[in-house]
Amino acid sequence: MEGLAIFAYAISGLIEARKRRLDAVGAFLVALATAFGGGTVRDVLLSRRPFYWVEHQDYVIIIFALALTAPMFLRLTTRLFDQRALLVADAIGLGLFSISGTSIALDAQMPAFTAALMGVVTGVFGGIIRDVLCNEVPLILRDSRPYAVCAFAGCWLYLGLDAMGVLGVYNVLFSTAFILVARLVTLKLDVRLPH
Amino acid sequence: MEGLAIFAYAISGLIEARKRRLDAVGAFLVALATAFGGGTVRDVLLSRRPFYWVEHQDYVIIIFALALTAPMFLRLTTRLFDQRALLVADAIGLGLFSISGTSIALDAQMPAFTAALMGVVTGVFGGIIRDVLCNEVPLILRDSRPYAVCAFAGCWLYLGLDAMGVLGVYNVLFSTAFILVARLVTLKLDVRLPH
Amino acid sequence: MEGLAIFAYAISGLIEARKRRLDAVGAFLVALATAFGGGTVRDVLLSRRPFYWVEHQDYVIIIFALALTAPMFLRLTTRLFDQRALLVADAIGLGLFSISGTSIALDAQMPAFTAALMGVVTGVFGGIIRDVLCNEVPLILRDSRPYAVCAFAGCWLYLGLDAMGVLGVYNVLFSTAFILVARLVTLKLDVRLPH
Repeated sequence: MEGLAIFAYAISGLIEARKRRLDAVGAFLVALATAFGGGTVRDVLLSRRPFYWVEHQDYVIIIFALALTAPMFLRLTTRLFDQRALLVADAIGLGLFSISGTSIALDAQMPAFTAALMGVVTGVFGGIIRDVLCNEVPLILRDSRPYAVCAFAGCWLYLGLDAMGVLGVYNVLFSTAFILVARLVTLKLDVRLPH
Repeated sequence: MEGLAIFAYAISGLIEARKRRLDAVGAFLVALATAFGGGTVRDVLLSRRPFYWVEHQDYVIIIFALALTAPMFLRLTTRLFDQRALLVADAIGLGLFSISGTSIALDAQMPAFTAALMGVVTGVFGGIIRDVLCNEVPLILRDSRPYAVCAFAGCWLYLGLDAMGVLGVYNVLFSTAFILVARLVTLKLDVRLPH
Repeated sequence: MEGLAIFAYAISGLIEARKRRLDAVGAFLVALATAFGGGTVRDVLLSRRPFYWVEHQDYVIIIFALALTAPMFLRLTTRLFDQRALLVADAIGLGLFSISGTSIALDAQMPAFTAALMGVVTGVFGGIIRDVLCNEVPLILRDSRPYAVCAFAGCWLYLGLDAMGVLGVYNVLFSTAFILVARLVTLKLDVRLPH
């Protein structure tokens, strides 16, 4: 499932790179930054080492291969997965990254509000870096959809359940599912944030 | 006074976010980045932990509330404070952030030139991150006004007085006042940097 | 030669700053970010301190002087050095920064693939930060020239020779020369990356 989250974020980077007509190197770097940017910013903020992608080199190499084959590969994926499948994969990514970010910040003795914020950072900074590199105002800052808001609510749910003594594994699963469902339901109902 | 500095920077973030039509989440993140970006970059460069905003969560929560009420709130502030009041608040922020940055870098055994540079980084990076997120060439890099220059001069003044044995508190007050006055006077006289 | 690399990167920053009509402060900050951005990002990722530019303040001061005299200075350099000389200097910079980045990552016990990636980061992130500050999609992500690719190949060459027991100094010289030659030859032959 973790692989799915990284995969979903990397593909969103590849799609964006393609839209901006980047070359293979650009596609690779943008995909990498999208997939691991959030976690890396969190780890820099928390002063944690080594980075996730240093310990899991295989993911970097897979993204490398994806970027090289991106033109062919994107044609395949758009045939296999439609837009909706990508949104679901991205929502799973958002849930997993946010909850794991909160849990890691909690382990690093951060207070609750900061831990929730770190969760959101982990979930959304990959996309922010992707958009900054592609010279756009980051989508999550302007699209009025509850994306970071869903992640934030889910992180507080995780913190609440954690304080109530719910076991780690169940808590992660439940909070991740909450973010996933919240994201998809608000999309479906076309909920908008105030401007 | 510290609260005033953070407040001034956060508002400049909110105003910019409004201009770029960001949603409430965007407004919050941009305000946060503007207020704490400079100090965070400095702390990452100096390898200092915990971050200021981790220790002072209340400021983050206030900015959170500000962003939620931004539309109403900005209408109120533009009525209460005119453009000039915001410039003064921003100049106080520049002074306080720059001098505190220099003093922290000095405590971390940085050499003088680096300490002055760290002061400027603390003072101006919040605005740079704000403008990068809003997809603009950072204002301080192109507006030809002595903004970073005032901060830089004030940081050297602080270093000089510190070397002469002036007590910390007086030095901070005097150097901050120097930056504040320098910024306002150069604005008033319409001093321009060479291109 | 190290000075030449930093100098070449700083000048590319000054030229870009001039093109975007930045003021003297903007020129200085962009030149600084171009020259030391790659190494600083690498050191943040590897958690290394102090930064190169903290230990070598003289370089920062030289760039400061360059930025102040940029208008005059750029006219002089464009007369002295033509476009080709700048490309050669930049290619030397790419080679030296990438190989030194790989070597430093290796010293910090990074696995091979990560070490090569860190080398590329050191070589190319200065340019990426320069372009982000100047509000452009980074050149190296979209120009289809083998820039990062040459650096990456050179870093693997360094890693291979290192594993074969080739002495550090010769290895650095040979791998740097490889990147330099690869960059200039692919430019000359107009080699293009796939899109």
